[in-house]
Amino acid sequence: MTIAYLGPAGTFTEAALRQVDPDGTDHLPASSVPAALAALRDGRVSSAVVPIENSVEGGVSATLDAVAVGPEVRILAEMLVPIRFNLVATQDKPLSEIKAVSTHSHAWAQVRDWAETHVPQAEYIPASSTAAGALGLLGDETVPYDAAICAPTVCETHPELLVLAENIGDNPEAVTRFVHLGGPESPLPERTGADRTTLVIPLWEDRAGALMEILEQFATRGVNLSRIESRPTGNYLGDYFFSVDIDGHVQDERVAEALVGLRRICPTTRFLGSYARADHKPAVVAGHHTDGAFTQARDWVADLRNPR
Amino acid sequence: MTIAYLGPAGTFTEAALRQVDPDGTDHLPASSVPAALAALRDGRVSSAVVPIENSVEGGVSATLDAVAVGPEVRILAEMLVPIRFNLVATQDKPLSEIKAVSTHSHAWAQVRDWAETHVPQAEYIPASSTAAGALGLLGDETVPYDAAICAPTVCETHPELLVLAENIGDNPEAVTRFVHLGGPESPLPERTGADRTTLVIPLWEDRAGALMEILEQFATRGVNLSRIESRPTGNYLGDYFFSVDIDGHVQDERVAEALVGLRRICPTTRFLGSYARADHKPAVVAGHHTDGAFTQARDWVADLRNPR
Amino acid sequence: MTIAYLGPAGTFTEAALRQVDPDGTDHLPASSVPAALAALRDGRVSSAVVPIENSVEGGVSATLDAVAVGPEVRILAEMLVPIRFNLVATQDKPLSEIKAVSTHSHAWAQVRDWAETHVPQAEYIPASSTAAGALGLLGDETVPYDAAICAPTVCETHPELLVLAENIGDNPEAVTRFVHLGGPESPLPERTGADRTTLVIPLWEDRAGALMEILEQFATRGVNLSRIESRPTGNYLGDYFFSVDIDGHVQDERVAEALVGLRRICPTTRFLGSYARADHKPAVVAGHHTDGAFTQARDWVADLRNPR
Amino acid sequence: MTIAYLGPAGTFTEAALRQVDPDGTDHLPASSVPAALAALRDGRVSSAVVPIENSVEGGVSATLDAVAVGPEVRILAEMLVPIRFNLVATQDKPLSEIKAVSTHSHAWAQVRDWAETHVPQAEYIPASSTAAGALGLLGDETVPYDAAICAPTVCETHPELLVLAENIGDNPEAVTRFVHLGGPESPLPERTGADRTTLVIPLWEDRAGALMEILEQFATRGVNLSRIESRPTGNYLGDYFFSVDIDGHVQDERVAEALVGLRRICPTTRFLGSYARADHKPAVVAGHHTDGAFTQARDWVADLRNPR
Repeated sequence: MTIAYLGPAGTFTEAALRQVDPDGTDHLPASSVPAALAALRDGRVSSAVVPIENSVEGGVSATLDAVAVGPEVRILAEMLVPIRFNLVATQDKPLSEIKAVSTHSHAWAQVRDWAETHVPQAEYIPASSTAAGALGLLGDETVPYDAAICAPTVCETHPELLVLAENIGDNPEAVTRFVHLGGPESPLPERTGADRTTLVIPLWEDRAGALMEILEQFATRGVNLSRIESRPTGNYLGDYFFSVDIDGHVQDERVAEALVGLRRICPTTRFLGSYARADHKPAVVAGHHTDGAFTQARDWVADLRNPR
Repeated sequence: MTIAYLGPAGTFTEAALRQVDPDGTDHLPASSVPAALAALRDGRVSSAVVPIENSVEGGVSATLDAVAVGPEVRILAEMLVPIRFNLVATQDKPLSEIKAVSTHSHAWAQVRDWAETHVPQAEYIPASSTAAGALGLLGDETVPYDAAICAPTVCETHPELLVLAENIGDNPEAVTRFVHLGGPESPLPERTGADRTTLVIPLWEDRAGALMEILEQFATRGVNLSRIESRPTGNYLGDYFFSVDIDGHVQDERVAEALVGLRRICPTTRFLGSYARADHKPAVVAGHHTDGAFTQARDWVADLRNPR
Repeated sequence: MTIAYLGPAGTFTEAALRQVDPDGTDHLPASSVPAALAALRDGRVSSAVVPIENSVEGGVSATLDAVAVGPEVRILAEMLVPIRFNLVATQDKPLSEIKAVSTHSHAWAQVRDWAETHVPQAEYIPASSTAAGALGLLGDETVPYDAAICAPTVCETHPELLVLAENIGDNPEAVTRFVHLGGPESPLPERTGADRTTLVIPLWEDRAGALMEILEQFATRGVNLSRIESRPTGNYLGDYFFSVDIDGHVQDERVAEALVGLRRICPTTRFLGSYARADHKPAVVAGHHTDGAFTQARDWVADLRNPR
Repeated sequence: MTIAYLGPAGTFTEAALRQVDPDGTDHLPASSVPAALAALRDGRVSSAVVPIENSVEGGVSATLDAVAVGPEVRILAEMLVPIRFNLVATQDKPLSEIKAVSTHSHAWAQVRDWAETHVPQAEYIPASSTAAGALGLLGDETVPYDAAICAPTVCETHPELLVLAENIGDNPEAVTRFVHLGGPESPLPERTGADRTTLVIPLWEDRAGALMEILEQFATRGVNLSRIESRPTGNYLGDYFFSVDIDGHVQDERVAEALVGLRRICPTTRFLGSYARADHKPAVVAGHHTDGAFTQARDWVADLRNPR
């Protein structure tokens, strides 16, 4: 029961994985989100942990795109990880003497203000992950940088990395949302009352009209959107799909009926899962959108169709 | 199995009744629409025929109001009757010598242009029905008018009425829609593919918002409205309900789901029946609103809820 | 400066007229709403007072239809008159001995419950107005009824009418709204902050879509509807226009812009006037729909179009 | 009159710059989109060319984010550049012997299928730009890769780069849209009839409702959206703004009025410019949304407000 994750060890993704499987060791670090997904789809692993949304950088495009096409997958759980960055090096030196800094481009985007203030002279060298940048400092090969920016966990496991500056993220509240993905036959997570459902909805030609039609499918059933992001399909300029999170579980009648409506108007709508919210915030549902209201109204219509 | 109708004999309502029961004789003329409804609700008759919509005067308020409150009734069928008017008298005389004309106020409204041109000197005397006005001319008591306006059928059954002018309606295409009403336990008319469903929907405080919410319940399921009329509830100025006809039958999935939605947002929504259209005009339904589309989308959601 | 009104003297309409012109005498009673309108349009009178909306019977169709077509008119003011009914006769007698009662059909509809309880044996004889029915009892000619239902004012001016029962309306809160109409060149009533605007809006083929488009013109500018009623055009079954009251004055920017939108999508939209509400209830307007918000937003766009 | 652009020379951005300024030489390559924007805002350059939308990768986040905050800028023109990729090296060798390939991560995403098929053994080394990756092969310092993926123009200017494979993009139709940006005082580009307007619209708390309100501001004026993309504000998970392209020019009345509406409901709406479409595709406008329709409707309302 191996779990793939966006590696290497020491990244924020590994911290998220630890929330799902604190003591496990059967973990496969993947070099990219598509690689983690491929391992899941090939059956080499039984599940995978990848980032899906970052409070600073937005939806993680690689994940949104990878789950939107190809064999279906299911979100089994979501995990929130606070994002903290350290500046590390192998030699203690004043910040003003650092020549080049390496880290993943997403991490660099999140420390940009700090860097412009404290290490304005440093060149930026992209790395394939925050951990890879830091560990490069410890390797045998020469690297073209003398400092790196990484997650605190890397420092814990590699005490030979000196922390030159701690908690340097521009937004101290930064958090990343990760998802635990399984195959399409995974058991549906139980409804908790504080759930989220994730969907992929293609947007057809007439964008304004199509988007309004989609939104009305939610509005008429009192379903709230907690995230809506557009992504290009890659076919041509202006061809999009939407990645959407809604409050509620497919076992909620209002969600189920909204999905029926979406699937009718767009038969390629994709269901990515219903699962418990990491923040345990319950959905607020007006009386006429509750399961009870659906049941009563359906009973009424059933009686109309079959007068006693 | 008596059928009540808005009498007396010789009115357009009797012509409508003849479409439902051509050869029957067990008919009870009622003095008003509420009286016909009362006979049905009391069990004195098994069904009733009343006018519901006139192409010139609009919805027949007495009917719309009578079916909207009180014990439930069901529309079993609708009938269309062309509206033709004759000017009758007991003595042949030039139109310019007619002093007063009697008829029902709705009929008077439909011949107003003709009357202003041909009998501008005549006073108008209201009658409780077109037939009553005409038959008053034949009665023993003196009536304060010397001509009447009535349906051609009255002339056929009372040859002593002289026809001074034929087909005097201002709109030669005028037609009135009648309905055949039964009790709430009546069998639901079969779905024909060219059906109509009639509803009573209260309009709550915020009129613009409420009306849009109602319309969206139809729009999201591709249900077309063929009639929408407002009526006051009688409680206070500005308190309304809507009388609505939609294309389709409650056995159509799109109609059933729209009714579930309406009933949820407004639990006092009233169903008056699904029945064949008199004009046999089939509903035009887009592919994604057909029963097949509903079935496929529901199967999809059912599978999501119970992964195999 | 004669004022026409729906007569005869002694009706509720005359009471409304007294609110506009308490001491005047230059008043022309008209036999019908169309007749009052014709006098205004012909220039025989300078203005006219007619009923427009009844809390029990709804919009007064004759008025809604008469102002919707033909030469334009303007509503200059609205007046509210409480509706009270008395049962009158020329001889004192027990209610159980009354054989026939005459009144206008709208009045009859408003006392129906009382009548069914107190004079169930009495036949109903329609009259062309409440006053006409009562005064018929005093005339030289024999009338086929021995009691009438009329407004209290008739009793005041005709003490020979005995009041057999007072205040017999089924709804003691019943009120009728009247309007004072002038020609299209009438000065626009001043904006008071508690205003109403009345419109006539045709409804085109696709009813659900057209109605939503109309409502959105109001909704996007935060304009609330206080009345919306459908009326048939008389052309064919299912052809309607809407008579609509909105909160606010055409001098309010949100109302003006909504009218521009309506007029664009429906060039035959008709403006019947902006005038003070009889109840002085001020419009509730969200901050982003105020005149100030419009001015700021327009200045912003004007600057964009002409960068300095 | 220096023009900044996302450098270095040899990138697709330089090709876009050549469309604006074919023969100029006063060009400043910037190391990042924010750096190009900073040069413009500081007054070091008079304008800047940056990518805004890629048919494969979607909106260019760095650009969308950089123009959404900070001092205002204006889009003066848009340019389309077809995207073609070559695999280059300094030594001719079979593809199967390539050990590591460097390029910008966006470029890597666009050749992923080709790479998995033809150089599956190669490690991916991120570069800060496609040109930087290729030129690294020619530098004095050792680089940890033996091939690079870049635009054909780099090969033209550096013949010492051997082309191992041509036109290796996964989507041969790939195209990137670039914009030419000026300061807020730039003259407004003339209306051509085939124009685009770009906006930044914050999305407030209630996402579904807010998004519908925004879309209705466009819908009620017949304004079509050609692009709508969400971007996080960076404040917290779920806080977004929308980057939107609409068909038409702020000098079009329908666009101007939609902007007034947007600005009212969201006073921080930002205007990024109206400019000619690179594809010269004219906007399709229904009759009731033309400038003529606006003028007529406004004249009508102006007359209502000032009766002659």
